Amino acid sequence: MAQHFGNTIGPAPSVWSPYDPPTSQPRSRPMPAERPREHAPPVAAARRRRLRADRARQLADLLRHQVLTGGFPGGVLPLEDALGQDYGASRNTVRQALDLLRAERLVERQPGVGTVIVAEKYPHGLDRLLGLAETLHEHGRVTNEVRTVGPVPAPACVAERLCVPARSDVLYVERLRRLGGLPLSLDLTYLPMDIGAELIGADLENTDVFRLIEKITGQALGTAEITLEAVNADAHSAAVLQAPRGAAVLMLERLTQLCDGRPVDLEFIRFRGDRITMSGQLRRAA
Amino acid sequence: MAQHFGNTIGPAPSVWSPYDPPTSQPRSRPMPAERPREHAPPVAAARRRRLRADRARQLADLLRHQVLTGGFPGGVLPLEDALGQDYGASRNTVRQALDLLRAERLVERQPGVGTVIVAEKYPHGLDRLLGLAETLHEHGRVTNEVRTVGPVPAPACVAERLCVPARSDVLYVERLRRLGGLPLSLDLTYLPMDIGAELIGADLENTDVFRLIEKITGQALGTAEITLEAVNADAHSAAVLQAPRGAAVLMLERLTQLCDGRPVDLEFIRFRGDRITMSGQLRRAA
Repeated sequence: MAQHFGNTIGPAPSVWSPYDPPTSQPRSRPMPAERPREHAPPVAAARRRRLRADRARQLADLLRHQVLTGGFPGGVLPLEDALGQDYGASRNTVRQALDLLRAERLVERQPGVGTVIVAEKYPHGLDRLLGLAETLHEHGRVTNEVRTVGPVPAPACVAERLCVPARSDVLYVERLRRLGGLPLSLDLTYLPMDIGAELIGADLENTDVFRLIEKITGQALGTAEITLEAVNADAHSAAVLQAPRGAAVLMLERLTQLCDGRPVDLEFIRFRGDRITMSGQLRRAA
Repeated sequence: MAQHFGNTIGPAPSVWSPYDPPTSQPRSRPMPAERPREHAPPVAAARRRRLRADRARQLADLLRHQVLTGGFPGGVLPLEDALGQDYGASRNTVRQALDLLRAERLVERQPGVGTVIVAEKYPHGLDRLLGLAETLHEHGRVTNEVRTVGPVPAPACVAERLCVPARSDVLYVERLRRLGGLPLSLDLTYLPMDIGAELIGADLENTDVFRLIEKITGQALGTAEITLEAVNADAHSAAVLQAPRGAAVLMLERLTQLCDGRPVDLEFIRFRGDRITMSGQLRRAA
């Protein structure tokens, strides 16, 4: 079958698609040059732009996986022509796909070298409850800038989740966490005061709170309820994280319990979207 | 203890914090009015802005949880004064926190009503492998606009992951998925052709691909490897999802296997960040 990847949007006539009715264009030919044509009817031009954008997204998603999983030896992507051949895509589509990856700060074009991987994106496991330093130990040293630490009266919603009386003190800790010196996440943490009081003097700069809790309580952590969201960083959070305003942030809310079921750690974590991926395995069976 | 939540950033003198040295200001008094003061030294003014922004973020995170979990009966937030009292925060901090939630399109200010919840954000489980219609069935009907469906020669990286010969045909499906009529996600899917050929004629508009695969193969799905990221939507993806350009997108890459371990479904899914949360439980023990 001679069909090219770059043509996958135009389905075979036997295939139903409400938006891409078969055209008279041969399916095995790449799309014509994608520069604007002065005399093309506006609808046809818009359709061509959409097709090209769709193809660029498809290609970008495939390349993104390889970029993030070490699929390009030496950290350099093949030349545009080679990529086009490998994926059956036109040069314009390849360029547009690389533009998408550049916009995400995963790759850069370096004169005389080509397109190189500049992503500093690290995997965080979703399969086990681990602190940041534990999970990223292979990738470098995690250091924490403690922006704030001190007791606060627990707002009702914090008190309820940590099972302490409303308005009783809890320890509030705010940390900017770095990997290899670059900001990775901004963590807001609430802990019950019996554990919190001992945390205050601990080495919060170099140690995960998880480890410290286990040391202080002499108990292992058990489970955590987590919620993940993608949000745009507000101006101030972006500035703290040294990311562009509006940058995509992976927001993690996590309530962690000790083995015995006692909730001991409520966290609101903003990960820089360009520095973290979360990976895990899901099972179909309940 | 009379300390207010709004003051939590200024730690007690016994508490170490490199950025908030104790000031002469009594800790039990709310911060003074936060309007710019003409004669304040620039450093003090900058510090005050930072403190207010930090407090607003703290408060916004607590309110966000309640907004998303039905913590405000009737979908209306308490008045600003009441919120200020509940959280020991100044009115300016409350306003700034509500601004953050508004920017995320979680709440709106309605004249004569107050601050109302407008979030249409739905929970997607991370504990079990479920299709979108399965997981969201309580929240409304999922419909799929099939933008493309048809065979394509598998690029090497797709062939490898689906365990089919390189350049052999796989089925490519592109769907815009809606919940309650509004775009929720854009899904790019690759399937081996023996399953894909039967999918072409199936009711892709109203049925999860997961269900169709199980029906076609007569086998239950087993596990899936997933990777989650937060990215900013490119212009074209944003337009398709009817989201603002640059909107935060929760990107899910998922390779799903049948019970017998055969990989049958490779997906690249862009969820609108303002419409989905992912929740699950993590365990500490390996």
